[in-house]
Amino acid sequence: MAHLHELSLVEASARIASGSLTPLELTEAVLARIAAVDGVVGAFVTVTAEEALREAALATAEIVAGSYRGPLHGIPVAYKDLIDTAGVATTASSRVREHHVPEADAAVVAALKRAGMVMVGKTHTHEFAYGGVTPTTRNPWDPGRMVGGSSGGSAAAVSYGGALAAVGTDTAGSIRIPASLCGVVGFKPTYGRVSRTGVASLAWSLDHVGPLARTVTDAAWMLNAMAGHDVRDPGSVTARVQDFAAGIDDGVEGLRLGIPVNYFTERIDPETARMVAAAVATLVEQGAVVVPMEIPQAEHFGAVITGIMMPEASAYHRRTLRDTPELYTDEVRGLLEVGETILATDYIDALRFRQSLKAAWRDAVVALDVDVVVTPTVFTTALPADDPVYRWDDGRVDSASVGYGRLSIPGNLFGLPTLQVPCGFSTSGLPVGVQIMGRPFADQTVLRVGRSVERVQAASAGEDPAAPHTVPARAPGLQ
Amino acid sequence: MAHLHELSLVEASARIASGSLTPLELTEAVLARIAAVDGVVGAFVTVTAEEALREAALATAEIVAGSYRGPLHGIPVAYKDLIDTAGVATTASSRVREHHVPEADAAVVAALKRAGMVMVGKTHTHEFAYGGVTPTTRNPWDPGRMVGGSSGGSAAAVSYGGALAAVGTDTAGSIRIPASLCGVVGFKPTYGRVSRTGVASLAWSLDHVGPLARTVTDAAWMLNAMAGHDVRDPGSVTARVQDFAAGIDDGVEGLRLGIPVNYFTERIDPETARMVAAAVATLVEQGAVVVPMEIPQAEHFGAVITGIMMPEASAYHRRTLRDTPELYTDEVRGLLEVGETILATDYIDALRFRQSLKAAWRDAVVALDVDVVVTPTVFTTALPADDPVYRWDDGRVDSASVGYGRLSIPGNLFGLPTLQVPCGFSTSGLPVGVQIMGRPFADQTVLRVGRSVERVQAASAGEDPAAPHTVPARAPGLQ
Repeated sequence: MAHLHELSLVEASARIASGSLTPLELTEAVLARIAAVDGVVGAFVTVTAEEALREAALATAEIVAGSYRGPLHGIPVAYKDLIDTAGVATTASSRVREHHVPEADAAVVAALKRAGMVMVGKTHTHEFAYGGVTPTTRNPWDPGRMVGGSSGGSAAAVSYGGALAAVGTDTAGSIRIPASLCGVVGFKPTYGRVSRTGVASLAWSLDHVGPLARTVTDAAWMLNAMAGHDVRDPGSVTARVQDFAAGIDDGVEGLRLGIPVNYFTERIDPETARMVAAAVATLVEQGAVVVPMEIPQAEHFGAVITGIMMPEASAYHRRTLRDTPELYTDEVRGLLEVGETILATDYIDALRFRQSLKAAWRDAVVALDVDVVVTPTVFTTALPADDPVYRWDDGRVDSASVGYGRLSIPGNLFGLPTLQVPCGFSTSGLPVGVQIMGRPFADQTVLRVGRSVERVQAASAGEDPAAPHTVPARAPGLQ
Repeated sequence: MAHLHELSLVEASARIASGSLTPLELTEAVLARIAAVDGVVGAFVTVTAEEALREAALATAEIVAGSYRGPLHGIPVAYKDLIDTAGVATTASSRVREHHVPEADAAVVAALKRAGMVMVGKTHTHEFAYGGVTPTTRNPWDPGRMVGGSSGGSAAAVSYGGALAAVGTDTAGSIRIPASLCGVVGFKPTYGRVSRTGVASLAWSLDHVGPLARTVTDAAWMLNAMAGHDVRDPGSVTARVQDFAAGIDDGVEGLRLGIPVNYFTERIDPETARMVAAAVATLVEQGAVVVPMEIPQAEHFGAVITGIMMPEASAYHRRTLRDTPELYTDEVRGLLEVGETILATDYIDALRFRQSLKAAWRDAVVALDVDVVVTPTVFTTALPADDPVYRWDDGRVDSASVGYGRLSIPGNLFGLPTLQVPCGFSTSGLPVGVQIMGRPFADQTVLRVGRSVERVQAASAGEDPAAPHTVPARAPGLQ
């Protein structure tokens, strides 16, 4: 039987609703797990144990009194330290915000609080989310390996049982990359679907907030509480919010999977490529149709996102960079200074180029009548923390900081709903992930495909495929 | 009885539908009017007389054969020369595009063609719409005066009877300013409501396409054919298209008019201010309620729109400015060169500042429960063409190029539906206009208020207030 900290959100929720588990017991188990292993992993900046126990006791009392708020009530959650939490330091893992204690909760924190979630702490990010490494945090599957980033702490915490779910942000892959390297589910919803009010910005036209969790349904349930229009976020959309878990177990019969024949197939670790192909094969066995797909103008993706992200980041940090440059790390200060030299016309050209790339992507998807595009999430598994480089047989080298984001950036450039789902383990025991990209606002479809991947993975791992949620948190490196 | 070229679109349409007027007769009358007076006014770059007669003959035949397309069928229309017309030179009033003959119609031209409109020609703009003067064109009410811009030719043509309606573009007031100075109706719909595909861009985040016409209902009918989603225009919205003429004669009983107490009251010619106040008084007599309104942070409007428009324009012209700088006028080349020096971080700051100004405007409108904001359209009437300057009693001076746009820019910054309606004549016989700004997508409400102003103007001019459309094209300076 699984430890309490290994439960999926759905499993824990069922037990809490039935009265066989209290929020207090669950929160105590999660805090004990953090105390036992976070010294090695370093997922948390701050653990709010006292407040968590108080909130969990309150949730327990509410539920006993018959005031059950719904499926998230009493579930322990962690927030990336980029996300404001009232009265709790929110440092963005930077000395610039070392003493920043927000007065108000971010919109998404307020929403999950209303749903009854219990915050256990704040998780590490790459400084201000401006990088794909999260240098403070080690991979729970192998502490000699990195977690990726920038929501590295969130992914690690969910992976080892430091929370049942977490909230991250994703500007170029920052939810999906660490989720893939840590073997958890990470979902970047359609642009504008989740409010960014109260979340430090990296690049406003690319920033997304989304859930990390153990299962696809867990992520859908989180999103149900997180999604919605917010007039305070200029990127927020008014499109109607769906029940993201509706139909999630309906399978993929007849769905058309766009399988790229370029870009997403280039410079991919062979084992990762094989495992993603195997995951696609399981979807085909379930009735999905493979549609080979040429990705148009993909060679420009990197340049365009750089031309947008760098000046947007520099604009956000402008005043602080002038006032207290010494508080940034050399790496991030350097990026911000370069971004300040970019001309408005260059930035506008990049924005216009993005529009034409987006139109080309949409045209390709429409022409082939593709429902989702399926690719690896990251080109390889977690690299060694002290040598974060992938060496190809021909002598070429890809660094984590550049290579990790290459497959995830289209989702941000085009605002597409994009999901990372674990699809097994490499021969060296590291998680591999598959990425599923949908059409704008087809978040439900993406989640349904992800759930179909997950169900087969669970079955092949000897778990009960009929049970809806069967991917426990395992962290062998720590056991 | 009015000459045929003086008919409103609605009147002409009724006669055509009843068979008492043919498109050919109407088009001949309009072409004769152009031949008689355009030598003085200079509204047209190109008159497409031959094609117009051919199209009008075809429309006449179609209608006789029972294939009536609807209320725009057979109505002469003019297009600002910024708008692509297949096979007809589209110069943007610039030597840069002297030889540019588009292969395809702009989306809006294609839509009006499908509705059966007959193009009589292309009208002058300030070079690439980058200015408020339209130096090629004189005011039909007094050829010694300017028309404003940049859709100066469109406004002049509609004013003197060179077309029954025209299409213009508006980035900082370019439909409303010349419409006001020429005594016609001009409407800038909500941002994204009308496609800009095939229209030369000045500044993509501020650009709008809209109608100029003799009456408010004429403009609403034009918009009915022009509005709609277009995936090729990244700014286009999917919001449902309304019947913009629905309820247009329902009056303003109970509507709340925001009447600014700052910004829109500053540096306004006293006679213009009095006449706009009189127009507001007629709305109050019809049951509207006046709500005094402080406009938040209005002192920043000019700086913010400049910081957005200049680099967007420079990005659009980047390649041409490098290849053929000598083909631009000194004025526009200078503006484009300055725009090239602006940093991306400055531009992004301006975009973010716009978001906060927009939120402040929305909050003020919501807090006061205001339906529309009513102001003068331009701070004074048409200035002398050879001395385009307004001299205040205290010695200060406002130039046309700076002063004309001051009251119209909020509509562009915030994407609001904004209407210019004539509200009478100054003691020197020049038209004065009132500006009506609504909430996003409340285009119908704005048109209804404008129609209520117009009805009273018609009555006080001795025309029949019960008749729905009674503002003929008068151009005393030319008669």
